[in-house]
Amino acid sequence: MATWSAPGKVFLFGEHAVVFGKPGIAMAVKPRVYVTVRKGRHPPRVKSPYIEGCFSEMDVKGSVYVHSQLPSSSGLGSSAAVTVATLSAINDEFDLGRTRADIADMAFAIEKKVQKGRASPTDTYVSSHGGIVLIKEGTKRRLPPQSFNIVIGNTLVSHSTSRMVEMVGSFKQQEPDIVDPILDSIDAVCMTAIHHLSDPKILGRYMDINHALLEALGVSHPTLTRLVMAARAAGAYGAKLTGAGGGGCMIALCPKRSKTRVAGAIEGCDAKAIITTIDTDGARKEHEGKIARKTGR
Amino acid sequence: MATWSAPGKVFLFGEHAVVFGKPGIAMAVKPRVYVTVRKGRHPPRVKSPYIEGCFSEMDVKGSVYVHSQLPSSSGLGSSAAVTVATLSAINDEFDLGRTRADIADMAFAIEKKVQKGRASPTDTYVSSHGGIVLIKEGTKRRLPPQSFNIVIGNTLVSHSTSRMVEMVGSFKQQEPDIVDPILDSIDAVCMTAIHHLSDPKILGRYMDINHALLEALGVSHPTLTRLVMAARAAGAYGAKLTGAGGGGCMIALCPKRSKTRVAGAIEGCDAKAIITTIDTDGARKEHEGKIARKTGR
Repeated sequence: MATWSAPGKVFLFGEHAVVFGKPGIAMAVKPRVYVTVRKGRHPPRVKSPYIEGCFSEMDVKGSVYVHSQLPSSSGLGSSAAVTVATLSAINDEFDLGRTRADIADMAFAIEKKVQKGRASPTDTYVSSHGGIVLIKEGTKRRLPPQSFNIVIGNTLVSHSTSRMVEMVGSFKQQEPDIVDPILDSIDAVCMTAIHHLSDPKILGRYMDINHALLEALGVSHPTLTRLVMAARAAGAYGAKLTGAGGGGCMIALCPKRSKTRVAGAIEGCDAKAIITTIDTDGARKEHEGKIARKTGR
Repeated sequence: MATWSAPGKVFLFGEHAVVFGKPGIAMAVKPRVYVTVRKGRHPPRVKSPYIEGCFSEMDVKGSVYVHSQLPSSSGLGSSAAVTVATLSAINDEFDLGRTRADIADMAFAIEKKVQKGRASPTDTYVSSHGGIVLIKEGTKRRLPPQSFNIVIGNTLVSHSTSRMVEMVGSFKQQEPDIVDPILDSIDAVCMTAIHHLSDPKILGRYMDINHALLEALGVSHPTLTRLVMAARAAGAYGAKLTGAGGGGCMIALCPKRSKTRVAGAIEGCDAKAIITTIDTDGARKEHEGKIARKTGR
């Protein structure tokens, strides 16, 4: 029996723009998905195309138990985390000798298959490796980790990543004179922000600008705007939607002393707040005792 | 005795960007300033550098009575309207034979003097001529008038136009890679919107985009955002801050059936709403009876 976990991810900068070859900065965050795999002839207990894909890709049979701290379909990369953790646990339980990089690649291939070609390699890479990752010109580079105080606000408004991505694509195609400069500005915000990763106050200002540019692209939602405004009013250095938008989640970068207040302001808007921070581990093996405590088994 | 009135103005598109040579679309709106001038040796009763400037520029002496429907210092061009109406009334009372264009130019010169060089010629031009005006490459052109249903929301948050203009100027100077594309996108929004002036639904969408781009420039204010969101939720086709931002006013373009609801939503945010529409007259002579009724004299 092997138990592995993998973290969720948020976009600090550049979501949507990365689709058009612009840079983006993503970060692994602490809510995790825990997956226990046990050798056996029986099919996995959990019906999930991602988990089925993992067993099929690794060409083994076994049972699986999943415990997730990550809300699904909220733009925090829960499917990538499930896939990465499952592949890692299978790799360990069956002693298959795959590297972390192999697992990131396989996880992306599985996501791509399940999501019919629309998956981004960012989620699986960040969940596998942890830390802060710069996506630029098709390559990924880990940036120095920072001890951020982050509050995630989940609007609980369902959204479709593929629909939002298509919407921006058709906006860009129909009105390039409006959209191209917005993407250029997001590019510049992202590349400038890289130099200020250790200063959350400055970084927060760039997050605010990035949020406004995403609003200009039409991918916000009134509830996202409301949570972003509430977080700023409660003392956040900056706040923005994270991921595809149109619902889903926002993140606020906070002074340590304000995180509870920011979370309270978000909950006060009938949304769900998660106080968290960077995850620097990526996919990791868990000890049984720890999991039993975490999952209440 | 001669009484003249002049309207206020809102920016439909392009405020701040016009400072850097980009196009803008401004519109005269119905709240008016009424000015009565009477020949005489006595100095004007109202102590205002604008009114003093008018008498000094025209080189005459007389008394003046001002009645304004326009809130001052709120970005609706009340100083331009006072100046244009005063010059027009003086011109009439003293039979000086100045044209509307002369008066627009003189009013701008007076604004420039009082505001120490920072005035924009847009306010005085729009207040003099009325209608919708395209400002482009230093020239002004009247566009076909439209019968819009407009709700103005006054945040009652005081702001300084010159401080906001300076702020954007220094942001542009320090981070041109971020700011220049935002101005380019505002340019494109404005030039695209020109082709949709007769379709308020489409126009509203462009106003929303323009608002987000102004947020990205950092010239919004939490109360402006709140009023904009409230107006949209109440059924507006679109809403944006108008003028310098940082406080002051926002405008919502509404379906006729929604204007009362939008105004109510704005008032519900502890702001002041004005239901209005385009003014196509510009500066105009008023009959005494009408003024007496309007001003309660």
